[in-house]
Amino acid sequence: MSGQDAAAKLQAFKAYIRKMKQYEEAIALIYWDMRTGAPKKGIETRSEVVGELSTEVFRMSTSEEMGGYLDFFMQEEELAKLDDITRKMVLECKKEYDRSKKIPAEKYQAYVVLTSQAESAWEDAKHQSDWASFQPYLEKIVATTQEFIELWGYEGHKYNTLLDMYEPGMTVEKLDEVFGALREKAVPLLQRIQAAPQPKREFLDQQFDIAKQKQFSLSILKQMQYDFEAGRLDETVHPFATALNPGDVRITTRYLPNDITSALFGTIHEGGHALYEQNISKDLVGTNLCTGTSMGIHESQSRFWENVIGRSKAFWERYYGELQSTFSGQIDDIDVDTFYKAINHIEPSLIRIEADELTYNLHIMIRYELEKGLFAGTLSVADLPQAWNAKYEEYLGVTPGNAGEGVLQDVHWSGGAFGYFPSYALGNMYAAQFTHTLRKEMPDFEAYIAQGNLAPIKDWLTDKIYQYGKSQTPNEIVQRVTGEELNPDYLVAYLEEKYKAVYGI
Amino acid sequence: MSGQDAAAKLQAFKAYIRKMKQYEEAIALIYWDMRTGAPKKGIETRSEVVGELSTEVFRMSTSEEMGGYLDFFMQEEELAKLDDITRKMVLECKKEYDRSKKIPAEKYQAYVVLTSQAESAWEDAKHQSDWASFQPYLEKIVATTQEFIELWGYEGHKYNTLLDMYEPGMTVEKLDEVFGALREKAVPLLQRIQAAPQPKREFLDQQFDIAKQKQFSLSILKQMQYDFEAGRLDETVHPFATALNPGDVRITTRYLPNDITSALFGTIHEGGHALYEQNISKDLVGTNLCTGTSMGIHESQSRFWENVIGRSKAFWERYYGELQSTFSGQIDDIDVDTFYKAINHIEPSLIRIEADELTYNLHIMIRYELEKGLFAGTLSVADLPQAWNAKYEEYLGVTPGNAGEGVLQDVHWSGGAFGYFPSYALGNMYAAQFTHTLRKEMPDFEAYIAQGNLAPIKDWLTDKIYQYGKSQTPNEIVQRVTGEELNPDYLVAYLEEKYKAVYGI
Repeated sequence: MSGQDAAAKLQAFKAYIRKMKQYEEAIALIYWDMRTGAPKKGIETRSEVVGELSTEVFRMSTSEEMGGYLDFFMQEEELAKLDDITRKMVLECKKEYDRSKKIPAEKYQAYVVLTSQAESAWEDAKHQSDWASFQPYLEKIVATTQEFIELWGYEGHKYNTLLDMYEPGMTVEKLDEVFGALREKAVPLLQRIQAAPQPKREFLDQQFDIAKQKQFSLSILKQMQYDFEAGRLDETVHPFATALNPGDVRITTRYLPNDITSALFGTIHEGGHALYEQNISKDLVGTNLCTGTSMGIHESQSRFWENVIGRSKAFWERYYGELQSTFSGQIDDIDVDTFYKAINHIEPSLIRIEADELTYNLHIMIRYELEKGLFAGTLSVADLPQAWNAKYEEYLGVTPGNAGEGVLQDVHWSGGAFGYFPSYALGNMYAAQFTHTLRKEMPDFEAYIAQGNLAPIKDWLTDKIYQYGKSQTPNEIVQRVTGEELNPDYLVAYLEEKYKAVYGI
Repeated sequence: MSGQDAAAKLQAFKAYIRKMKQYEEAIALIYWDMRTGAPKKGIETRSEVVGELSTEVFRMSTSEEMGGYLDFFMQEEELAKLDDITRKMVLECKKEYDRSKKIPAEKYQAYVVLTSQAESAWEDAKHQSDWASFQPYLEKIVATTQEFIELWGYEGHKYNTLLDMYEPGMTVEKLDEVFGALREKAVPLLQRIQAAPQPKREFLDQQFDIAKQKQFSLSILKQMQYDFEAGRLDETVHPFATALNPGDVRITTRYLPNDITSALFGTIHEGGHALYEQNISKDLVGTNLCTGTSMGIHESQSRFWENVIGRSKAFWERYYGELQSTFSGQIDDIDVDTFYKAINHIEPSLIRIEADELTYNLHIMIRYELEKGLFAGTLSVADLPQAWNAKYEEYLGVTPGNAGEGVLQDVHWSGGAFGYFPSYALGNMYAAQFTHTLRKEMPDFEAYIAQGNLAPIKDWLTDKIYQYGKSQTPNEIVQRVTGEELNPDYLVAYLEEKYKAVYGI
């Protein structure tokens, strides 16, 4: 093949990828619309629209045309000729293509139907705390996933193949190491905290006007450098961020009238996800690399902004006065230190999504241990509730009263999303590790926060992380930015320093 | 071909149409989003998404696969076997297919580029009242349209082929007849009105709180039986209604702080369009007949609700009290009769979109006469401004001071939309004719309005018109509902009765 032909093939390949991205953008807009205000009577027909477009994207990703591009560009000498970005595009496509092609179409179709039924069965089961009605679905999902793992292939632990879907390159070996180190310090820290007196919090228990909550959330987003010309904030039941393209990254939140912190920290959290996507390099638009590199790195950004910035003392030294005047008359007699301690109180609980910065990691480790057991064959689905409760008692010292607040609390398993949970705790670890480097490289870090000057922080993250999108792996990013692999010690040090001060222990 | 094969072919054809409709629904949602609040930095990429999806719809509509279906089902014996709805689907596809196939692709592509440049040239030209800069574009557009007419073919007047795009079956012969009859009565009526004293209107010239305007508009939409579970109201710069599917028909409006009538009547107008689309039979969902049958019939519904209902005495006898209490203190001393006359004042003006119920028709007739002349070859583009001004003087007694408020005022011609304008006046005529039948069949019509009981009226329109979507032609609908062809006398009688009372002439 002449160089000219190869150039034409490359152009066609890129146009093909761009077309897939365009379909995905349309689908993402439809989902955003369905979750923010689409009239309910139109949903059934709209779902068919999503189905049609998604089918087309899947068809394109596994088509003969795609296969032809990959056969050609995966040849060693052709791959070597490509620039770095294009090579990454090809490798990313190849990974997806292989994964999709290895599952027979009818088997995948049956799995889609199964998980769709299972999600609906899970909702009922959770509502009624009825584990028995959900168990058969979960057994089928685990069995099918086991089959898929055999078809996909795996290195080392079978669960590695699942982890890799959400956190490319992550393994059981690595997770055992980092989670082990974290747990070893987190559990005793938690015990010391529990022995100390709890901060005053009852002033949080009052009605906060929703229009004012919204106004305050918007002003914080603006301070964070969230670009409102490249996004918007809407309301929804289950908040999320969605990147349609880097010029349109939308976030959603939910205001609770009796809770000032839920919408505020939720908005900062989603705003962190959004900053990542808004600041991906324009050069990656229309490629399959124009997205965050992994669930874990994405979560590191939402949690960095929510916790490292939003739950810091410096942040509230700057913004607490504004919060007080926004809710004039409601928290006038509460000083900033009291407020700061209240929003950082630690308490073991049963429900993951309500957990604090410290115990959240333990909720995740429990799920990780259980998933690992399911795919190692050392734990059966039937034994899950008992194993769940035992782990909660061991790690957190609490025991669920029923399956609804125990093993049935999360939607993930009903959709077959095994390997996803670790991302949340990885996010906390990555965030602490990035923060360590950031503090070293930006000695005025705290001062900037205390001044409400968050732009240099956003610029540093853009420079180091955001701009690259998916063109670098999580490990490449962590190594380049911090000079070492993922290391849980930074999170341990951050938690110990912060909570020793908060609790005076 | 066996009956079984034919059945399979029919199923495949219907699935093919449904897929096209699904793509169109995605495109419609993207347009709605772009016009109601999409962040501006995402628009460029989003436009490419629309381009990609639109290209796919056009490809499908002219594909070999479509050609194959049409070759088969257009055979006389196959067409005869189809049920009425399916036969209409085939005929509608065939019409679109022939229209698209007759224009060579490169010629059409050049036309798309030309109109896109022309729209942007028109904006500048209008802004600067600079006819000379726009004239060459319009000359090219008219010349290309002439070529298209030759390729499409025509019966009788060349302009008939253009009219048929917006109002299937409409001809110059018919329009000359109905517009002639209407003008003959409208012009003297206007002269008598102009000789009479104008109603008091200065109380409309004050600030009206936008939140209250919105609240009042929403309550009227609810009374009209607009289904908020199958739609929503948003704000935009140029209001519109868009039907994504009958379960999701969205309307938009624009609130002006110093004008209580603009958003209110605009909302009722768009609400009328929406009622039509919300009440199309569910059996037509996913077919190419799931839309209003023509621009004229669509406009008859927006104008029926806006003018026949919304600008009636009975309507304000019911709702004026609510309007007064909504804007408490602002129109307390204005009685309902004064308000009614003020919102029905008649005054010749230069600008079509600001025209009243009577003179609006004359604005349309002017454009109709000019378009007809352009395609008959009796008027050149160069002579348009002079011809425009002469007609305005003749029909309305006013003369534009410059091209911006004259021949350049409308966007339509820059986009090549010749044959579209008559729909607006046809809408008024159809509305009056339907109203005549409705009054006969529903003796309590006025009483229902005066009670705010609008459901029976919406139900009658659904029964007679809405449910059929595009499965019947405009002429079939008018004949079936009113027992005769389009007849301008009903509009004349309606206008004479109404305005003789308003002006006491």
